[in-house]
Amino acid sequence: MSKMIDFQTNPSLYRHWRIEYEGPVANLIMDVDENGGLFEGYELKLNSYDLGVDIELNDIVQRMRFEHPEVKVVVIKSGKDKVFCAGANIRMLGGAAHSHKVNFCKFTNETRNTFEAAEADSGQNYIAAIKGACAGGGYELALACNHIMLTDDSTSAVGLPEVPLLAVLPGTGGLTRVTDKRKVRRDLADIFCSIEEGVKGKRALQWRLVDEVIANSKFDDAVIERAQKMAAESNKTDVGEGVTFGPLNRVITLTAVTYDLIEVELDHAGRKATITLKGPSEAAPVDMSTFQAQGDQAYLLKLARELEDAILHLRSNENELGLWLFRTQGDPVLFATHEALLADNADHWLANEVQQFWKRTLKRIDVTSRSLAALIEHGSCFVGVLAEILFAVDRSYMMEDEFEGDNRPIAAITLTDANFGRYPMGNAITRLQTRFLAKPEHVEDLKSSIGQAMEAEEANDLGLVTVTLDDIDWEDEVRIFIEERVSFSPDAMTGMEANLRFAGPETMETRIFGRLTAWQNWIFNRPNAVGPDGALQRYGSGVRGDYTMERV
Amino acid sequence: MSKMIDFQTNPSLYRHWRIEYEGPVANLIMDVDENGGLFEGYELKLNSYDLGVDIELNDIVQRMRFEHPEVKVVVIKSGKDKVFCAGANIRMLGGAAHSHKVNFCKFTNETRNTFEAAEADSGQNYIAAIKGACAGGGYELALACNHIMLTDDSTSAVGLPEVPLLAVLPGTGGLTRVTDKRKVRRDLADIFCSIEEGVKGKRALQWRLVDEVIANSKFDDAVIERAQKMAAESNKTDVGEGVTFGPLNRVITLTAVTYDLIEVELDHAGRKATITLKGPSEAAPVDMSTFQAQGDQAYLLKLARELEDAILHLRSNENELGLWLFRTQGDPVLFATHEALLADNADHWLANEVQQFWKRTLKRIDVTSRSLAALIEHGSCFVGVLAEILFAVDRSYMMEDEFEGDNRPIAAITLTDANFGRYPMGNAITRLQTRFLAKPEHVEDLKSSIGQAMEAEEANDLGLVTVTLDDIDWEDEVRIFIEERVSFSPDAMTGMEANLRFAGPETMETRIFGRLTAWQNWIFNRPNAVGPDGALQRYGSGVRGDYTMERV
Repeated sequence: MSKMIDFQTNPSLYRHWRIEYEGPVANLIMDVDENGGLFEGYELKLNSYDLGVDIELNDIVQRMRFEHPEVKVVVIKSGKDKVFCAGANIRMLGGAAHSHKVNFCKFTNETRNTFEAAEADSGQNYIAAIKGACAGGGYELALACNHIMLTDDSTSAVGLPEVPLLAVLPGTGGLTRVTDKRKVRRDLADIFCSIEEGVKGKRALQWRLVDEVIANSKFDDAVIERAQKMAAESNKTDVGEGVTFGPLNRVITLTAVTYDLIEVELDHAGRKATITLKGPSEAAPVDMSTFQAQGDQAYLLKLARELEDAILHLRSNENELGLWLFRTQGDPVLFATHEALLADNADHWLANEVQQFWKRTLKRIDVTSRSLAALIEHGSCFVGVLAEILFAVDRSYMMEDEFEGDNRPIAAITLTDANFGRYPMGNAITRLQTRFLAKPEHVEDLKSSIGQAMEAEEANDLGLVTVTLDDIDWEDEVRIFIEERVSFSPDAMTGMEANLRFAGPETMETRIFGRLTAWQNWIFNRPNAVGPDGALQRYGSGVRGDYTMERV
Repeated sequence: MSKMIDFQTNPSLYRHWRIEYEGPVANLIMDVDENGGLFEGYELKLNSYDLGVDIELNDIVQRMRFEHPEVKVVVIKSGKDKVFCAGANIRMLGGAAHSHKVNFCKFTNETRNTFEAAEADSGQNYIAAIKGACAGGGYELALACNHIMLTDDSTSAVGLPEVPLLAVLPGTGGLTRVTDKRKVRRDLADIFCSIEEGVKGKRALQWRLVDEVIANSKFDDAVIERAQKMAAESNKTDVGEGVTFGPLNRVITLTAVTYDLIEVELDHAGRKATITLKGPSEAAPVDMSTFQAQGDQAYLLKLARELEDAILHLRSNENELGLWLFRTQGDPVLFATHEALLADNADHWLANEVQQFWKRTLKRIDVTSRSLAALIEHGSCFVGVLAEILFAVDRSYMMEDEFEGDNRPIAAITLTDANFGRYPMGNAITRLQTRFLAKPEHVEDLKSSIGQAMEAEEANDLGLVTVTLDDIDWEDEVRIFIEERVSFSPDAMTGMEANLRFAGPETMETRIFGRLTAWQNWIFNRPNAVGPDGALQRYGSGVRGDYTMERV
């Protein structure tokens, strides 16, 4: 599985999903092409999915918000007979490297979370309309929807058979959403997660596994009715026209991934990637109409798209680059005008969508299992949402005072409103609140610094950067940090970073990426699941996994 | 490492700790006997510890509350020169099986938590008085204390060098307490957890790693002063005399562990343990003076001690018994009188301590990595705190109506005040609140059932049991459940149960047993830590671990 995984796609390339638009309702039909697997060696039977299917889904959810803002309700259905979705493809999982399994789960988790974000942030609701078997990752897909409808017939059931069948967890949020979103009673959840055949009809409703159970003969009408009712009740603004996403301008070589606004330098010998974000070259559009006319070329939208793609590309295709260094270069004042346009028009649908997109992209940074650092150099533009990156990374290094022969503007950080609530982390508080958990009043005090360009000494005094270095120390100190960091055990780093990044409150989201994922990763390393006689390898052979029965 | 691990000890047997009592202050001196390791193959140098050292510590913390209720402040010190504590012994960890490492961490975590519980529940405070190196598990010991004092000299420092040195996490609560108890800024925490040498003096204070830094010449006096001040300010009641814990009456055979009040049946072929708790044989003591005169023979205290020992014994010595079945037999009315005495005298120090002990013991059940079920049979006495076991287990099965030839009283459950707040879980809400997360009002309604013996139909209607079965179905259904449960992959069960048991809010405690432990377990399975060229194996060889540099 070493071919490059490309997260860019578009509707003309979809092999696994169809969409039928009917005004405010979109029907999203899962109809997986058995022969359309991303890799060789497995067939995507029974609407099972692999990363390729999910890359399309991610693209759909994203475009739904930008290209189809008129849509208020998305109904997920199956295009197959008697099966809604059988979940992640087991042969794919059985053959995949540990790192691919983990990356696959992270990406699918992020995509599921965007269903919920679409409702919370844009009033775009997801309904799961289940006919036929809905198992494992299939039910997790439904769990991520805000409303689950199940038809009442002999073959339609929801189930999480991972534990009894495969000796792994329902790891795409399944266990967490059962207990914390659906709030299923824990002993009933215990039964539900221990049976292979799933739960049907009235019992599924009683156990809170679905929201509605409907006679088969009335099901299709009931779904239409429910979707129309939800659309009518949605508080989503009516929007006539969306913004179309064209292809990214991206060039990938052995040593770099280059976009219009982002340059990613790949240093394989040094095991690091340097991600440089460029400031805008022009002043902000005068208003949101002009912004919308610029469409996918509008600076802040384009930058978010490129950043998201860079993150996804590095995560899946550059596993040995254990350290990411974030840099920016550009005009802070000009950048601030672009951000201000969105902030001043937060009730404009597109301004909202662009900001929500940044929120999701920053969250992708938070949960990335790479060491993250920022280099705040002269000439940088860490302002507002870009300054937010400084509070997402594990450490930041900032240039102090003039550097010989460097005539770029002195490095500074500028906080804006954006740093005080617009981009909460998965733990539902801001990165500054998480950073200053011991001193909540300090976050309030920082508001008085909004709009001021703070150089190293001030930024350091206010606790906004980790290390400040002058011309004499910069090169050596940064080099030593980098060399040391990339020499540590990657696994220990992943565990440490996952724990240190998320202080403070927990949410369903942090639980999925923290507790649930960590247990699943552990299980993905255990012979009972992945060994030659483990359940994943033996699946489909008719012979059950041969387990070591020791409890640890 | 297959010799039996005994969690029972007493002060005359301690090899690693000394205690000096000075009125309301106890000095707890860690002075580990290098040659006193629980197993062969390592020396406990530099006050490093293994499970044996921690078994003594657990015993000390427990006796401090019951035998020395006059103590208001416990000061932990080192009996060695230039070292406070070097943490868990690395050679022991390097040689230990995965299951031993995991069990060791769970037990040490539980013991650390009791430091904090001692303050919260009994006003008994722990101070760490650090002279010399305090690294890894040594600093985690200090982190569990409520006040950390560090002497200011060239050798005294606190550190968490696990990640750079050993490629594992500070897994005994270290990472979690740094971010969530000490609330250290995350980028400073990142540095702190990445350096081998630790942090000294003023910086340790500035970074919030310690509460006081004191010149070496004044340190001992400052510690005495601080301890006396804390003792004077403590709200702990003055108590003249404690209750002495004599040895448990316990007989271990191949097929059973038998105590006075508990019988544990070991079924190795069936991979299950059946734990039967007996009701009291006599009426409750008339008052707390009588209770105290009964001392460690008082029914509810004795039952808690036996239950705790049974839990610890099974966890460490019976790894292949993957299912625990809880049963009770006894007179519910008589049991209620014992519980009522404690409830009615909650402000009596001993009544409080016994109830807090039950709280800790129930929490041990919650975090036990075994499948847990309760059998509510005729003749049982699931009342109050014993009914709490029903809400701690994964499932419960209850007998319904009369069984042929069974003349025991019909099975019933009785709720008491105890089920509504006295025994919160680690997530800080009650087991009933966790169970009915979807219906908080139902928990309120249940209060109207307090004191009523509810038979199967009513208990089922109120959602208090999982399955009710009559004479015809009981034997087969219970047998099928048991056979199925013990056939599943133990790892998948552990992950599933850890996720399903803790819905609702998270606390530092749930994070330690959830997120932190799960990541550590994952790392404990990775070659970078435990492989032949991993850091744990190579520790002390002068050669650093040889790491696979892939990030997953």
